Amino acid sequence: MNPSDHAYTAPEVAAVYRAIEERRDMRHFTAEPLAPELLVRLLHAAHHAPSVGYMQPWRFIRVTDPDMRQTLHALVEEERIATARALGEREDEFMRLKVEGLRECAEVMVVALMERREAHVFGRRTLPEMDLASVACAIQNMWLAARAEGIGMGWVSIFDPAKLAVLFGLPEGAKAVAILCIGHVAAFYDKPMLEQEKWAKRAQLASLVYGDTWGQGSGLDL
Amino acid sequence: MNPSDHAYTAPEVAAVYRAIEERRDMRHFTAEPLAPELLVRLLHAAHHAPSVGYMQPWRFIRVTDPDMRQTLHALVEEERIATARALGEREDEFMRLKVEGLRECAEVMVVALMERREAHVFGRRTLPEMDLASVACAIQNMWLAARAEGIGMGWVSIFDPAKLAVLFGLPEGAKAVAILCIGHVAAFYDKPMLEQEKWAKRAQLASLVYGDTWGQGSGLDL
Repeated sequence: MNPSDHAYTAPEVAAVYRAIEERRDMRHFTAEPLAPELLVRLLHAAHHAPSVGYMQPWRFIRVTDPDMRQTLHALVEEERIATARALGEREDEFMRLKVEGLRECAEVMVVALMERREAHVFGRRTLPEMDLASVACAIQNMWLAARAEGIGMGWVSIFDPAKLAVLFGLPEGAKAVAILCIGHVAAFYDKPMLEQEKWAKRAQLASLVYGDTWGQGSGLDL
Repeated sequence: MNPSDHAYTAPEVAAVYRAIEERRDMRHFTAEPLAPELLVRLLHAAHHAPSVGYMQPWRFIRVTDPDMRQTLHALVEEERIATARALGEREDEFMRLKVEGLRECAEVMVVALMERREAHVFGRRTLPEMDLASVACAIQNMWLAARAEGIGMGWVSIFDPAKLAVLFGLPEGAKAVAILCIGHVAAFYDKPMLEQEKWAKRAQLASLVYGDTWGQGSGLDL
């Protein structure tokens, strides 16, 4: 059980774990513009994600028109209020949270699932939602690359996808799954913001890992 | 548009991009066992993923019983044949592909969505599938950490989740979304295996990125 011959150097391995541990879902941004080359590097990172049956279902819409951004923000605000109401007793607490940095961030990118996905059966016959899993992996790649570059990113999923489909002219079958806020930040949160704000606590990893059967101990020293 | 003050050093940034570019969905493994500490590091990486409303919906079942692994393999084989039939004219081509390394890999881990997810409305009122997106981010973290450590990983989604629920005793509402094959490899593929085997080509990134409206140019030099 030796280290692998294919392992990166120790500093390289540490850098990958550092990005994983220090990545945050950011909602606070500065006004500084983002270099377009940086955005291009993030998109290349996304495009190197795994995808089920190699279908590459990710599509990106860069929002540059200020009116489009404002309309998008209004749609998020509408859904934020609907979400607060659905939360019942935590409504007020939720309304006090900052859940997006859409108006401040340098770049806004809508990520959508492609059209005509039903033609892709490989790995999706029983789990059609695997296309979303692939898109999420692409977004995680962007997030980690952005963190290493010192750039913040937030994934906003507080919106009605039908309304975004109209706003951005999505073809039938395509579906928006993320609004990404990307930009410079004054500082990264020390902990996930929802932990800092006491919305929820980090779970004990040992309670989430089982052995052979749900609920049974894993035998791992977690 | 200067580099960020929060950027990692150039070699650290390069290491993160290296892992993103060299990560592969592996289906060929050697028989060498995996150090349990390594598996623990990968699980910690998973647990540092973002999650919608900080719900941490990921659950892991480590498969150590050889009979369980064999039964699991038989279920995947059943679905592989059903998938091939569903593919029609590409049936034979699909049957010749190696789509999993379940019998050879050192460790098998089933990843599932937690039970009682309906209580989590934050970021999921209109997009309930965001829990799967979070789990996919967790798996991508494991994949990148594994690649840096020189360890191969494959995500198998060729199975009937209802049958896995019975096999692993999942509670109502929980759902298996991945079988991960993890272990040492003789070599990583130079390109995604499905590209090497000419199942599909890598898309041109420029054709996937739009500006303000679906299908419109992004203005980025991709």
